Amino acid sequence: MTSSRTNIAASLGPGGEFDIIRAMAARWGARAVGLGDDAAVMSVPRGDSLVASVDTAIEGRHFRREWLSPRDIGRRAINAALSDLAAMAATPLGVLVALAVPTEWRASLLDIADGINDALTSAGTVIRGGNISAAAELSITTTALGSVHRALTRSGLRPGDRIYVTGELGGPQLTIDALSDGATPPELALARFVNPAPRLAESRWLAARGATAAIDISDGLGQDLRHLAAASTVRIEVDLQAVPRLPGVSARDAVVSGEEYELIVGAAGELDVVGFSRQFGIPLTEIGRAIGLASDGPGVDLMEGGTRVAIPGGHDHLSN
Amino acid sequence: MTSSRTNIAASLGPGGEFDIIRAMAARWGARAVGLGDDAAVMSVPRGDSLVASVDTAIEGRHFRREWLSPRDIGRRAINAALSDLAAMAATPLGVLVALAVPTEWRASLLDIADGINDALTSAGTVIRGGNISAAAELSITTTALGSVHRALTRSGLRPGDRIYVTGELGGPQLTIDALSDGATPPELALARFVNPAPRLAESRWLAARGATAAIDISDGLGQDLRHLAAASTVRIEVDLQAVPRLPGVSARDAVVSGEEYELIVGAAGELDVVGFSRQFGIPLTEIGRAIGLASDGPGVDLMEGGTRVAIPGGHDHLSN
Repeated sequence: MTSSRTNIAASLGPGGEFDIIRAMAARWGARAVGLGDDAAVMSVPRGDSLVASVDTAIEGRHFRREWLSPRDIGRRAINAALSDLAAMAATPLGVLVALAVPTEWRASLLDIADGINDALTSAGTVIRGGNISAAAELSITTTALGSVHRALTRSGLRPGDRIYVTGELGGPQLTIDALSDGATPPELALARFVNPAPRLAESRWLAARGATAAIDISDGLGQDLRHLAAASTVRIEVDLQAVPRLPGVSARDAVVSGEEYELIVGAAGELDVVGFSRQFGIPLTEIGRAIGLASDGPGVDLMEGGTRVAIPGGHDHLSN
Repeated sequence: MTSSRTNIAASLGPGGEFDIIRAMAARWGARAVGLGDDAAVMSVPRGDSLVASVDTAIEGRHFRREWLSPRDIGRRAINAALSDLAAMAATPLGVLVALAVPTEWRASLLDIADGINDALTSAGTVIRGGNISAAAELSITTTALGSVHRALTRSGLRPGDRIYVTGELGGPQLTIDALSDGATPPELALARFVNPAPRLAESRWLAARGATAAIDISDGLGQDLRHLAAASTVRIEVDLQAVPRLPGVSARDAVVSGEEYELIVGAAGELDVVGFSRQFGIPLTEIGRAIGLASDGPGVDLMEGGTRVAIPGGHDHLSN
């Protein structure tokens, strides 16, 4: 109880924890920047705003060790945090990583570090600091820092706006269902579960071409559309059958599948879906429209053959 | 496993977690800013750099529930994180708070929120986002964001620089020793343990008057002097008997007492200790000098009556 914490941004003095931090920093190489002070110091491009978000991945809550390697776990934790920057069309400035590490995970820390490095490399960003503590369960809390000139927001939808979604949904849910049943998930679905990508470049491309609103899909399309509708004070009408999904995924499963890290975007005009697909190799699909408030307030209308159907329920993070 | 996280910066839709977040945000009132998007957006003053740090407080590792109220725990977690900004002479822009909450702690969340609010109010800053998850043990991971024109750094010491420390040390260690023995700690010591303050205004005052190097005391004076010496590639010679301490604290205990959140600062010239004390109501005490590297490399020489004495050992955060 004498002392409380260790910044990765420490001077790496003597002691076991410092050896571990030093070994992790060696894995990161040039992707570790400015570790050596109480806090990271960086520049935000002139005229840009700072964008900051924090995201936690906890063993047994957000991931299962049987389903993911330590490297996967490290990579996914960083990518999930970076996805919040993508939702704002921000450019990453770097991440801070707070690790809480049980004894039985210490031998896996360098593999986790490699996964962190994978995500940093893909996103072209760096780790600027962090913190390591002993704990009863593994958790990785990532702060993503970025900059943006004009952010996409959840509140940016107006009645009449078109609603699009990137990529093809359902892979993570299909994988979880298969693994829970002891079955082998389809390869494409498994790849989406193990290695989701934050849509950073995609988001900036869309913001530069007319998108004004966005949210990333972490809770599931249905739930995240609700967040978007609530923040924008609109209703959103979605054509269930238009929802893009991987082969073998039902429309319903595509709506509830979480941890997709695809983007829902809104735009007043038509977005260039062909140009998008050519640029990024994934589809951009129009799935519905924002409409004015009905008597029942902000929300989502999921339509199938002209009939409104129930939206599969959301997920309470405190109850899982 | 369907979904992974919830930003406090969410649109506060339906569900138990959102009710909790909404209730916490109500406690924060105007101190909660911009909760409602995937990430916080803020401005860094033109010409300033961004400063960012992350700090984790875990139940049973960094605090004990028997010793601190939930409100104390919330306040201390934020203050510890803000102390990293103080070490850089940065001005806070806000904090992000990631809470991992076991079922048995849910009833205490509003008290923790009140403690967070206490710290935000004292520092004149705000909460700009966060995250809440279920977990096996309570942890509070705080990202402190700030801005600075010219940061104090650990590497800013030069041979000949004077070394100062703010406040009076030993209160936390004295309190922990007393509580561990089932005794009642002295009032002043207990206050230093329960409610340490980040030296934000003090640090900016010192930076404006010639300080060039700083570190906050989290691991203990001896250990943090080592970090400073290592980062600056100097030796630091400290007069043990000059170390300012609370009544009843031995010099040795003052050197090992952690979680002080007082500052060690270095300056080429003499700092205005009288003006400092008049301004802030706590002492600023010169305790030693930086000296050139001896054959034994960077480090700390603790001197007592002209004799070098051993420095009480550091603390490994992974082994506690």
